[in-house]
Amino acid sequence: MKKKQDIIMNTSFFRLIKKSEKKQGLAPGTLVHIGEHKTEKTTIQVLDYNEETVEEKNINTVSECFSFKETASVTWINVNGLHELETIEAIGKHFDIHPLALEDIVHTGQRPKIEDFDGPIFIILKMLFYEESSDYIHEEQVSLVTGRNFVISFQEIPGDIFDPVRKRIHTHKARIRKRKSDYLTYALLDTIVDNYFIVLEKIGEKMEDLDNRLLEDNSRDTLQTINDLKRKVLSLRKNIWPLREVIGSLLKEDYELFEESTAFYLKDVQDHIIQLIDFIEIYREMLSGMLDTYFSNLSIKMNEVMKVLTVIATIFIPLTFIAGIYGMNFKYMPELEWKGGYFVVWGIIICVTIVMVFYLRRKKWI
Amino acid sequence: MKKKQDIIMNTSFFRLIKKSEKKQGLAPGTLVHIGEHKTEKTTIQVLDYNEETVEEKNINTVSECFSFKETASVTWINVNGLHELETIEAIGKHFDIHPLALEDIVHTGQRPKIEDFDGPIFIILKMLFYEESSDYIHEEQVSLVTGRNFVISFQEIPGDIFDPVRKRIHTHKARIRKRKSDYLTYALLDTIVDNYFIVLEKIGEKMEDLDNRLLEDNSRDTLQTINDLKRKVLSLRKNIWPLREVIGSLLKEDYELFEESTAFYLKDVQDHIIQLIDFIEIYREMLSGMLDTYFSNLSIKMNEVMKVLTVIATIFIPLTFIAGIYGMNFKYMPELEWKGGYFVVWGIIICVTIVMVFYLRRKKWI
Amino acid sequence: MKKKQDIIMNTSFFRLIKKSEKKQGLAPGTLVHIGEHKTEKTTIQVLDYNEETVEEKNINTVSECFSFKETASVTWINVNGLHELETIEAIGKHFDIHPLALEDIVHTGQRPKIEDFDGPIFIILKMLFYEESSDYIHEEQVSLVTGRNFVISFQEIPGDIFDPVRKRIHTHKARIRKRKSDYLTYALLDTIVDNYFIVLEKIGEKMEDLDNRLLEDNSRDTLQTINDLKRKVLSLRKNIWPLREVIGSLLKEDYELFEESTAFYLKDVQDHIIQLIDFIEIYREMLSGMLDTYFSNLSIKMNEVMKVLTVIATIFIPLTFIAGIYGMNFKYMPELEWKGGYFVVWGIIICVTIVMVFYLRRKKWI
Amino acid sequence: MKKKQDIIMNTSFFRLIKKSEKKQGLAPGTLVHIGEHKTEKTTIQVLDYNEETVEEKNINTVSECFSFKETASVTWINVNGLHELETIEAIGKHFDIHPLALEDIVHTGQRPKIEDFDGPIFIILKMLFYEESSDYIHEEQVSLVTGRNFVISFQEIPGDIFDPVRKRIHTHKARIRKRKSDYLTYALLDTIVDNYFIVLEKIGEKMEDLDNRLLEDNSRDTLQTINDLKRKVLSLRKNIWPLREVIGSLLKEDYELFEESTAFYLKDVQDHIIQLIDFIEIYREMLSGMLDTYFSNLSIKMNEVMKVLTVIATIFIPLTFIAGIYGMNFKYMPELEWKGGYFVVWGIIICVTIVMVFYLRRKKWI
Amino acid sequence: MKKKQDIIMNTSFFRLIKKSEKKQGLAPGTLVHIGEHKTEKTTIQVLDYNEETVEEKNINTVSECFSFKETASVTWINVNGLHELETIEAIGKHFDIHPLALEDIVHTGQRPKIEDFDGPIFIILKMLFYEESSDYIHEEQVSLVTGRNFVISFQEIPGDIFDPVRKRIHTHKARIRKRKSDYLTYALLDTIVDNYFIVLEKIGEKMEDLDNRLLEDNSRDTLQTINDLKRKVLSLRKNIWPLREVIGSLLKEDYELFEESTAFYLKDVQDHIIQLIDFIEIYREMLSGMLDTYFSNLSIKMNEVMKVLTVIATIFIPLTFIAGIYGMNFKYMPELEWKGGYFVVWGIIICVTIVMVFYLRRKKWI
Repeated sequence: MKKKQDIIMNTSFFRLIKKSEKKQGLAPGTLVHIGEHKTEKTTIQVLDYNEETVEEKNINTVSECFSFKETASVTWINVNGLHELETIEAIGKHFDIHPLALEDIVHTGQRPKIEDFDGPIFIILKMLFYEESSDYIHEEQVSLVTGRNFVISFQEIPGDIFDPVRKRIHTHKARIRKRKSDYLTYALLDTIVDNYFIVLEKIGEKMEDLDNRLLEDNSRDTLQTINDLKRKVLSLRKNIWPLREVIGSLLKEDYELFEESTAFYLKDVQDHIIQLIDFIEIYREMLSGMLDTYFSNLSIKMNEVMKVLTVIATIFIPLTFIAGIYGMNFKYMPELEWKGGYFVVWGIIICVTIVMVFYLRRKKWI
Repeated sequence: MKKKQDIIMNTSFFRLIKKSEKKQGLAPGTLVHIGEHKTEKTTIQVLDYNEETVEEKNINTVSECFSFKETASVTWINVNGLHELETIEAIGKHFDIHPLALEDIVHTGQRPKIEDFDGPIFIILKMLFYEESSDYIHEEQVSLVTGRNFVISFQEIPGDIFDPVRKRIHTHKARIRKRKSDYLTYALLDTIVDNYFIVLEKIGEKMEDLDNRLLEDNSRDTLQTINDLKRKVLSLRKNIWPLREVIGSLLKEDYELFEESTAFYLKDVQDHIIQLIDFIEIYREMLSGMLDTYFSNLSIKMNEVMKVLTVIATIFIPLTFIAGIYGMNFKYMPELEWKGGYFVVWGIIICVTIVMVFYLRRKKWI
Repeated sequence: MKKKQDIIMNTSFFRLIKKSEKKQGLAPGTLVHIGEHKTEKTTIQVLDYNEETVEEKNINTVSECFSFKETASVTWINVNGLHELETIEAIGKHFDIHPLALEDIVHTGQRPKIEDFDGPIFIILKMLFYEESSDYIHEEQVSLVTGRNFVISFQEIPGDIFDPVRKRIHTHKARIRKRKSDYLTYALLDTIVDNYFIVLEKIGEKMEDLDNRLLEDNSRDTLQTINDLKRKVLSLRKNIWPLREVIGSLLKEDYELFEESTAFYLKDVQDHIIQLIDFIEIYREMLSGMLDTYFSNLSIKMNEVMKVLTVIATIFIPLTFIAGIYGMNFKYMPELEWKGGYFVVWGIIICVTIVMVFYLRRKKWI
Repeated sequence: MKKKQDIIMNTSFFRLIKKSEKKQGLAPGTLVHIGEHKTEKTTIQVLDYNEETVEEKNINTVSECFSFKETASVTWINVNGLHELETIEAIGKHFDIHPLALEDIVHTGQRPKIEDFDGPIFIILKMLFYEESSDYIHEEQVSLVTGRNFVISFQEIPGDIFDPVRKRIHTHKARIRKRKSDYLTYALLDTIVDNYFIVLEKIGEKMEDLDNRLLEDNSRDTLQTINDLKRKVLSLRKNIWPLREVIGSLLKEDYELFEESTAFYLKDVQDHIIQLIDFIEIYREMLSGMLDTYFSNLSIKMNEVMKVLTVIATIFIPLTFIAGIYGMNFKYMPELEWKGGYFVVWGIIICVTIVMVFYLRRKKWI
Repeated sequence: MKKKQDIIMNTSFFRLIKKSEKKQGLAPGTLVHIGEHKTEKTTIQVLDYNEETVEEKNINTVSECFSFKETASVTWINVNGLHELETIEAIGKHFDIHPLALEDIVHTGQRPKIEDFDGPIFIILKMLFYEESSDYIHEEQVSLVTGRNFVISFQEIPGDIFDPVRKRIHTHKARIRKRKSDYLTYALLDTIVDNYFIVLEKIGEKMEDLDNRLLEDNSRDTLQTINDLKRKVLSLRKNIWPLREVIGSLLKEDYELFEESTAFYLKDVQDHIIQLIDFIEIYREMLSGMLDTYFSNLSIKMNEVMKVLTVIATIFIPLTFIAGIYGMNFKYMPELEWKGGYFVVWGIIICVTIVMVFYLRRKKWI
């Protein structure tokens, strides 16, 4: 848990690019892990399947997975942890991953993108999950390398997000078993994109909460929350917007590896991404509407305060003046001698009050 | 009626994507109905026609409609209710609807889109209707599947919106009777788009109301109404904007099913959609103008309150001071002994008042 | 005159789309006149000309104009009034106007557009004129149908806007006499677009007025005027913006009817439209600048009011306190016994006043 | 000088399109001079040069320049003054300038544009210069007509802006002497665009001034200056933005007249224009930042005023109340009888003052 | 150090274009150094390398570097200082640099761009570095000329930014040693772009600082800082945005010099630039959010001040009135004679106070 806190500290919104500093001036293709050592040890899981059989195992030495490159069955190699550079490099070498791609894999902080280095197709994207306790959206970089018969996925920390895909592979007659590595890639992408909806939904809930208390409460906290949500939405947008292009280029360009029947499924992912972007834009507009409400609330509160002040002052200042008049000590003030003088003054006071109250009522201030 | 309220509760603007949660991690193409059971039972109406004859019937078992696939006449199969998955699935299988399309049909919450899965053309869009009593714009997902001789429409609840089309089909010499399934698809699209105008018009009426009372009333309610209208307009935009592309792709791409003569009609629908978008943008600008008016009203009100306070204070505070002076109890205050002292003070008071009133008049504060 | 008022009432900005209601659910191509019966009777003027001769006449029965379709001379048929549907329909039938075009002609409320229904070219646009007395910009729909040897123009009310064109046709050696129907179409478009400049100029004048009085006057009226101008500009934009595309498509696409030499003239119209759009955008920015001025004026006024209040209160409240002190009735108040006590107090009062005035001067509040 | 003032009066920002009024309804190609008679007489200068010789003369009758059309040398004909329509028309006829181009030349108020009427290339753009004394940016329309061996430039008033080009032509080994009319056109364009930088720089200086005094001064003048600068920048943008397209089309389209080697130079002009646009956008953003500063200054000033009022009121109002209490005339008020009563009250007053001051200090209001 | 200060003075944001003034009206291709004499003497370093050998030397006379043009090895000629025009010109002549390119090299103040003058490829971009002491982002123009076997880089001042590239070249088995001039160009571009991240990060740190103190401090300084950061971000954007196009055109167009394998590396640079632009946009949005916070803080402060004023006035003004009543000197005021009158008044005062406090509590003002 402590570790996670560190991550949060180090990925504060304003320092997003701090990481790049370490690398300044190195030759391209030099592997430098930039990011947190988010996991103790790099672990590798291999899942090899075809229509008939499934084989799953955790491997200890990186070379164990090399043999899967040539098999006709589809192999999914999942690498958790990016700081053991020799392991990453060994995989890269064996599976023909371009040095620049390897560099991007370990240098977390990339923009989502797709690249075709005359070898396997290389996709980088972000996995997002919202941690309730710290009210923080975690970003984790996921890289997918799709070759003819294999998909290698690189994650920063081991997670269970891909479990449903694993389960589906284990299911005997699942469609995924009959398909190639392109379909597996799609399944992984789809799982990640589906996950975005959960994050967006959490933000939606927070916005609903905010919306409910917006009218009563206008402390600085509210503004903080609005700004915080704005930043969360910005951060989502930053990660989701480029994905549109990524999938778009998978759809448009002729990647030999991707069969046409998989395109239907990718289009579905594309639709989801566009829908996410739609929502993000709507949320942005709603947040700006909330800001208006917040500011108008401040004004309304101010108006209220001023009205009370004005009502009190308007009624009592003239009265105090009247009382002041008859508090004067002139020798010759005829009214003071009158018997009913005091009561006449009370009469005047009451009249003035009534007139004022009437006037203020008409103005709807009381 | 109770049911409808539930719908309203569950589709609050902030939770639009909640629905997607249920589905997380399932294989694509798995049918899961996401949305409300808005109708008790799934009902199916079949309308089969050609230039000479029309046949309409409600069918009980799904297989009854299968025979219509092969007939040369145009068949319109209208399915109300999306929660009986076996029915949907049976239809899908018989009419060659792609599993992903079927999934989208029952998973309400899709973005309007068109898809061509090497089989029938698949269009998803939203039907909108405004419910006066709850001041709510209902969204209902409508899916149209257009094959060579049939159109299948899927609705969440039975409704009468397509009745005019039905009536036209029953009319003996109607143009629709001479045309194919592409024209029927157009007719259904046109009906839905026409319906948007009614919703937009309701919003226009509400804006007019708001505009009229904007100058008198600046309670928080007004802001709420502005924000509410903004969200309504956003929600319209979300549903109408993508339709432009849907029709655009029907017009541009070479769908064999759509004859060129139908293109004229589709262009007409396209024009309507562009007009709707124009209006939506104008409404957005007008709402932002209203917001300005609202804020300026708050300021003007504040100014008014402050002016009254300042007028009262400016006049009476100096007077009270004068009265205070002669309320002092010094032994040797020559003025107090003067016979006319009291009246001189009154004179001063009146002079000061006149000067002040004159000053405030010149400032136009009274 | 009464009639005109009705028009104004019915085309309030918020109800622009009301008109579409009537038509809901009719078959496409059904003629329904939507708009006001702006003229008593539909009248038709025919102007037939070639290089040598001109013939102008008002015709009574619609069939009189049919013969002009085949003549080699150019014929301009101007139809005023859109509610006599049989007349419109008869013309439509004879001149091969597509039913959808006919529908758009009588259904005023269309977006400017061009359509090519395999027959004559069909253009819809708006004529605008500003009525000083009611401070209202009238919209009138004008439809132009251009065939090989004829142009048919449909207007809602008879007007004199096309008179200059008529005059030019009557001029013996005018270029228009040597040209075909495409040039006539251009001449009519040009006249309408030229007219927009007059409307825009009126708005410019109103903005100048507003700008002049903006600094002195900040009543609610000013804001109303700003918002009203904003809406006028929006309404202009709505009508002019799509024209760009209309002319653009005349220029780009290969309409056989439009000779290349006419393209130069159309380009000129296009330039005017782009210039109009430029101005509209500039006006929008200037209006938003005026809004800033307006709001800052409110703030400056408020500041002024508060300064007066503060000046008065800052000077007199402490003084009143001093007077209050010596208004106390304690038995043993040594100062009260002093001979010069009263004058010392006056001294203090004067000192305090001087200090306060000095302080307020330094703050530049007085 | 008087004349210039007139110009300024007549080209107020709000009336930019007034000029078009005169022309309403005339046949296209009819020459009407729209703009001011900015010069007494139309003068024509001819500069004829090739690699070996240069010949410069002012001509009196328009026909004198006709002979230059056919010479192999490059001829630059500079026409100052646009109101002698016969002269313009004669030139137009002889040099094959299209009537529509001629119309645009004399109708000042065109948008910058390029046109290719199957004859010489026709470019319209604006010359801008800033007049310090009246704080006004003058616009002058310049038209360039480029034929095989000639360039004709039309200016509204004689000016010295083209002098450097003239000087270069007179220089013996200047590159311009070896080149054709396309290079001369480039040289003239370049001179005009270079001039924009001077205007933009003046605006920059004014913005710097404004920025310096923005924090001290927040009178209405400041806002006026901001709005004035905004309008100046808008006016620049209006004139410069379309030039991008003009040069772009010179670069992209295959104008036979423009040799490829000239393209490098045009690209340079294009770069300058893009840079100007960059600056204009930056200036716009900076002006909007200044507006924020201005508004925040108003608020800060207000806060300050209110703080003073509150400080005074918070301290003295309670004290006055205390004094008021012991100013009451009750028969039985034990405190009044006490010997030290008066001093105790002073003690209380001092205590209350200390508490209040302490409280206000903590709030940082004093 | 003094020198640097001068630079800062002369490149104030508002005078960015001042420099262009000097050049007004000169023939294109005339070399005029515009910018500061930032270095005493122009120095030239030559680095010649191939897979086997590296040779580095500082040369004294410009002609020494000429011989490297023809060698098969890659030569990097780095020129520091742009004011010795004969040197620049000599290099230009020998290495076939187009006069317009040479002009741009010495005229610092160019927009980043790429140009292909039928000879070596010419790239201009900006090197940025942030100087902590003066809180200023320095811009330095860097020009790269890439020929078949050489790269010439022009800098305004000698710097160490390219040192890592130099070091890599000296490394025996470095990839750069096996590659051609295109890869060297990439390496230099990459180094400059990497440097931008450092500048952006500094801005990020400043924004974090600002964000932290935004809630406590709302002096004018804060606004100044926001505006200053806005301008810094604008200035970054101005320099980085056009680079996207520069690299894009290197990738898209078929520059013979650039081998396909280098494209992968350039794409990497492109990704970095897009990421920078992403961050710049996010920073802009965050700064505008901070502005909202700033303004709302002003309002909240104001509200607080007004509440205190209102609380004090609401409680004490009525009380003072009560005390004033019994300060009147009427002969017949029955209450004054009552024994407990004084204490009853105290009772009333306490009651009124309690009521007021209760009322203000409910309003949550105390």
